[in-house]
Amino acid sequence: MLALCADPAAFRHTVERLAHCATGPVSRILSPGPEGVILGAAVAYHLRIGLVALPRSPKGPLLDDEALQPGEVLLYIDAHLASGETAEAALHLAERQGADLRTAAFLNEAPARAGRRRLEALGIRVHVLG
Amino acid sequence: MLALCADPAAFRHTVERLAHCATGPVSRILSPGPEGVILGAAVAYHLRIGLVALPRSPKGPLLDDEALQPGEVLLYIDAHLASGETAEAALHLAERQGADLRTAAFLNEAPARAGRRRLEALGIRVHVLG
Repeated sequence: MLALCADPAAFRHTVERLAHCATGPVSRILSPGPEGVILGAAVAYHLRIGLVALPRSPKGPLLDDEALQPGEVLLYIDAHLASGETAEAALHLAERQGADLRTAAFLNEAPARAGRRRLEALGIRVHVLG
Repeated sequence: MLALCADPAAFRHTVERLAHCATGPVSRILSPGPEGVILGAAVAYHLRIGLVALPRSPKGPLLDDEALQPGEVLLYIDAHLASGETAEAALHLAERQGADLRTAAFLNEAPARAGRRRLEALGIRVHVLG
């Protein structure tokens, strides 16, 4: 993923593909650190919207109170989909603030696809580029 | 800094100002995590170049061997300039791979400006948006 970002053409192409995962208007990108925010920042810039970064902690992703607007539509972006635990935690954080998170995009996913099933069971549309 | 990224207009304006700190052609952005890479990714996307991310460790920023091309011109971007220690370490990592790092841009700096003096003494042009 870091090698991809270092390559101008691959980086640009990937950011554009991630941005196209949004099927409707999106108010902001929601991305966990440390890798998700790299992609999320560029996608947010491309879409001319803001990025809400979710720093990781041992207890899961962190989000300030009132970081989100009630009703705003988020696109979740991260590099890798493994268990889906971080994305599920992000969904709950978003819901608690009344925001709408129904789409998540990743560069790649773990072969067993457990994370995809977990997120789809929560009503999230999952896009994986690679 | 994270609040700034969450605001579309402020984020865009800041990214454009950081990009303008380059006084000549730049081949890639060099940015440390976790905050620098958020800005660096968007600036790289804006300039249609790549981002080389420098994960932080207790021993300082990390860079893979051969991550940089000999002779390539880098623009260093981070959110905050404090002691300048991370930027100096990045400079040495870049020099070891033959890359050229002479310009660094930050959103803000510590009031005493010790970091600025440290980097300028190393021949780096320091830009702080302020």
